[in-house]
Amino acid sequence: MSYKVHEIAREIDAEILCESDVVVTHVADLEDATQASLSFAASNQYLNKLKSTNAGAVIVSQDLVAACPSVALVSNNPYLSFARAAKLLHPEKTFTSSIHPSAIIHDQCEIGENVYIGPNVVISEKCSIGANCYIGAGSIITAPATIGAESCLVARVTIVGPTIIGLRGIFHPGVVLGGDGFGLANNQGVWEKIPQLGRVRIGDDVEVGVNTAIDRGALKDTIIGNGVKLDNQVQIGHNVIIGDHTAVAGCAGIAGSAVIGKHCAIGAASGIKGHITIADGVQISGMSAVRQSIDEPGLYSSGTVLQDIKSWLRNATRFKDIDSLYKRVNQITKKLEDLDKGK
Amino acid sequence: MSYKVHEIAREIDAEILCESDVVVTHVADLEDATQASLSFAASNQYLNKLKSTNAGAVIVSQDLVAACPSVALVSNNPYLSFARAAKLLHPEKTFTSSIHPSAIIHDQCEIGENVYIGPNVVISEKCSIGANCYIGAGSIITAPATIGAESCLVARVTIVGPTIIGLRGIFHPGVVLGGDGFGLANNQGVWEKIPQLGRVRIGDDVEVGVNTAIDRGALKDTIIGNGVKLDNQVQIGHNVIIGDHTAVAGCAGIAGSAVIGKHCAIGAASGIKGHITIADGVQISGMSAVRQSIDEPGLYSSGTVLQDIKSWLRNATRFKDIDSLYKRVNQITKKLEDLDKGK
Amino acid sequence: MSYKVHEIAREIDAEILCESDVVVTHVADLEDATQASLSFAASNQYLNKLKSTNAGAVIVSQDLVAACPSVALVSNNPYLSFARAAKLLHPEKTFTSSIHPSAIIHDQCEIGENVYIGPNVVISEKCSIGANCYIGAGSIITAPATIGAESCLVARVTIVGPTIIGLRGIFHPGVVLGGDGFGLANNQGVWEKIPQLGRVRIGDDVEVGVNTAIDRGALKDTIIGNGVKLDNQVQIGHNVIIGDHTAVAGCAGIAGSAVIGKHCAIGAASGIKGHITIADGVQISGMSAVRQSIDEPGLYSSGTVLQDIKSWLRNATRFKDIDSLYKRVNQITKKLEDLDKGK
Repeated sequence: MSYKVHEIAREIDAEILCESDVVVTHVADLEDATQASLSFAASNQYLNKLKSTNAGAVIVSQDLVAACPSVALVSNNPYLSFARAAKLLHPEKTFTSSIHPSAIIHDQCEIGENVYIGPNVVISEKCSIGANCYIGAGSIITAPATIGAESCLVARVTIVGPTIIGLRGIFHPGVVLGGDGFGLANNQGVWEKIPQLGRVRIGDDVEVGVNTAIDRGALKDTIIGNGVKLDNQVQIGHNVIIGDHTAVAGCAGIAGSAVIGKHCAIGAASGIKGHITIADGVQISGMSAVRQSIDEPGLYSSGTVLQDIKSWLRNATRFKDIDSLYKRVNQITKKLEDLDKGK
Repeated sequence: MSYKVHEIAREIDAEILCESDVVVTHVADLEDATQASLSFAASNQYLNKLKSTNAGAVIVSQDLVAACPSVALVSNNPYLSFARAAKLLHPEKTFTSSIHPSAIIHDQCEIGENVYIGPNVVISEKCSIGANCYIGAGSIITAPATIGAESCLVARVTIVGPTIIGLRGIFHPGVVLGGDGFGLANNQGVWEKIPQLGRVRIGDDVEVGVNTAIDRGALKDTIIGNGVKLDNQVQIGHNVIIGDHTAVAGCAGIAGSAVIGKHCAIGAASGIKGHITIADGVQISGMSAVRQSIDEPGLYSSGTVLQDIKSWLRNATRFKDIDSLYKRVNQITKKLEDLDKGK
Repeated sequence: MSYKVHEIAREIDAEILCESDVVVTHVADLEDATQASLSFAASNQYLNKLKSTNAGAVIVSQDLVAACPSVALVSNNPYLSFARAAKLLHPEKTFTSSIHPSAIIHDQCEIGENVYIGPNVVISEKCSIGANCYIGAGSIITAPATIGAESCLVARVTIVGPTIIGLRGIFHPGVVLGGDGFGLANNQGVWEKIPQLGRVRIGDDVEVGVNTAIDRGALKDTIIGNGVKLDNQVQIGHNVIIGDHTAVAGCAGIAGSAVIGKHCAIGAASGIKGHITIADGVQISGMSAVRQSIDEPGLYSSGTVLQDIKSWLRNATRFKDIDSLYKRVNQITKKLEDLDKGK
């Protein structure tokens, strides 16, 4: 694709401060950019690279205009403007509607208009695939699923429990929807399986990363709200509810029946205990352990800082003594107060 | 399915305190239950919901009988009784024995009676599939495997190293059995691969969750005991031994050559170091790091509590000073003792 | 395979201290070894087992020669020598060049000499597969990929973004290369996807474990150096760069745009924050959280030690008070100094 920069500015709601015939063909970062590149500088961090960029045009925040050596597209949210410009210049590959002859599809499925179903796809239950869906190679659906229009199973996505997916979903390879939750009852030391009977319900505009698992509910449903974004290798237990527009970074795990609010950001590799509730607008830093409900929005963290192994060992060992240390300091304080009084 | 509640009571070994013709058709939780629902209340936590439930019948513990507004099925272990009632009312889907024409099966495999082999299954080695096994769509076996009777590969399970599976196993999508362990020897900074020659041996009644990996042994075997339950996204390194009836929750990792006892419960996202030994009956809380052997049964934990980011930063920074703080308090104590003596 | 021990000694650069006609057929550990076994003892830890082994020959370090009850092959690096002997005695299965009739391959692919392409493989883009490659059953490639000679996709590997793989790579089942990174711009609370346009570039002699994901770059490429070894369930975010000969253990996560040096060892289940830089030669212990760049080689750790739950709770709760405790001790020290001065 190639666009004149003022066309792009119009499309991405950025302001262009000069007349310009510059044409760009692709996005690039400031360092790699050429005259045909559109780049971006979102904050002062980018100042040095901005000054020396060869980009034909740069999306910048207002305060960086003066430093921009090429055509400046001024935006209140340069990163967002850049995302949109990138979509313009690099539109998603379109697909031709087709059903690969190797696909094995249950004869009572409803298949919408203009659908792509790739090689070796298996749909062995009555399912409904909405219009303009892309069901990538090797995807397997063995449970009743309803997939909303314009959704995309990139490749090798598996659906094995009853599942409802909204519009425009994106599911990356290795995703498994509707697996049985970890429901076990203990009978004198022996685990007995509890049938998992709920569904997975996924809203509109949800993206789910590589090898992420979302279990079906036990009795109720597992619910993923609209606009939720899950990164790679995430684990979502049964009956979890995730509010709209919450993002969960890679390797995070959310245990069964946890309820996460809207507009939350769950950091990478963090863990949310089961059966707790996280308020709207909570942010959890990476690798934090969330063992209790959180009632107030804000940014939370747990863990210790990294140290060289010798220092760490010394301090980690003393961690065992914090409580006794605390009590000793209390005693000392008391003793000093007594001394004071004694004077 | 529909059952009279006294039939269910008999099957699940619960006591029913009155004559009743109530018929239930499904299980539900207390909130969603209708007259046709069987529900359960396992502890006082459920008291309020129990009082207002519309369930036709409720499995309750003895102390909740009085609060139960409908037919009470009294059980010493309501959760277990509920699991069994759910199996009665929602029996697993049966399958018709068949081998899908798209399945590609090595001609020297032994295939038991009444087996289902789904679309696009590949079995490219001499394998033995026991009677009544279900080999779900897209499963791939490229190594000699023996799969015990009544086992189920739900879909898209992969076996790439020599593997023995006992009776009634359940393996969820994305499971990989018999991958090479992480065996590397270092040659002046360059890693050389150590051939992985062992097997995976899995007992009876084992369930393995979505995207869980169990590596083959290096020299000896990786061994998963009877009744072991592994949740989703779990990593089991080479030569690990897991004792009977141990449960491992989602995202936990057990490094190579660790030996876990029987009847343990390993919390979600916890990590067990390699080459250590965990006694029978140990419970590890979620997100704990287990870096040393544990000799005594009990419940163990590591990590810090979650705090708002400012408080956390202050304390996490001071973590570096715990040891020096400890020593200073020792000095202060000494000094105060000297003062005392000086009087 | 069977070898005379002096043949093996020559091949693995070990010294054999006596004439010997002993023939071994396989490797085994000291406990399980028979007269036909070659075993190894790398350090004093193995002393007792060495003394009682029945192995026909043992690879030992110099200081263990005296304790060896059978033929000793003396090596400066017994573990490495053992790795090489294991390769001799247990050579990898060779494959017959063939393309399974069920494989679906884009007609503009370049397929090298002596390649194996297994059942149900899908290559739906113009790709280049080097000589002697093994593309295992169920692997799916839907993006332009170049795979260097002698590489092996064990089974069910998925490549969905533009990818370049060097020579002799090994990719285990469930690996996904080239998935979209987690690139999102926030528009007043709603996430908008940023097109992911970069590639995955992987050097020579790289091994990638089961269910590990490597995302494609956003603008630049994600780069995995020569000789890098990634274990199972690892997550590599977009634009990550990993230096040559670095090893990453299972379940570790490396967030977007992190740069890891050469010859690093990243412990299991540890997490590396995005956009930070780790120097060459850094070792991170398991389950550590790396939130800041590391400039110096060395071994680093974070977290606390494991305790029984009661002790842990007491100390973890006091973790919240470390900073205030620190300040109180400062005050006490000050007070005692004042007392001293007052004397």
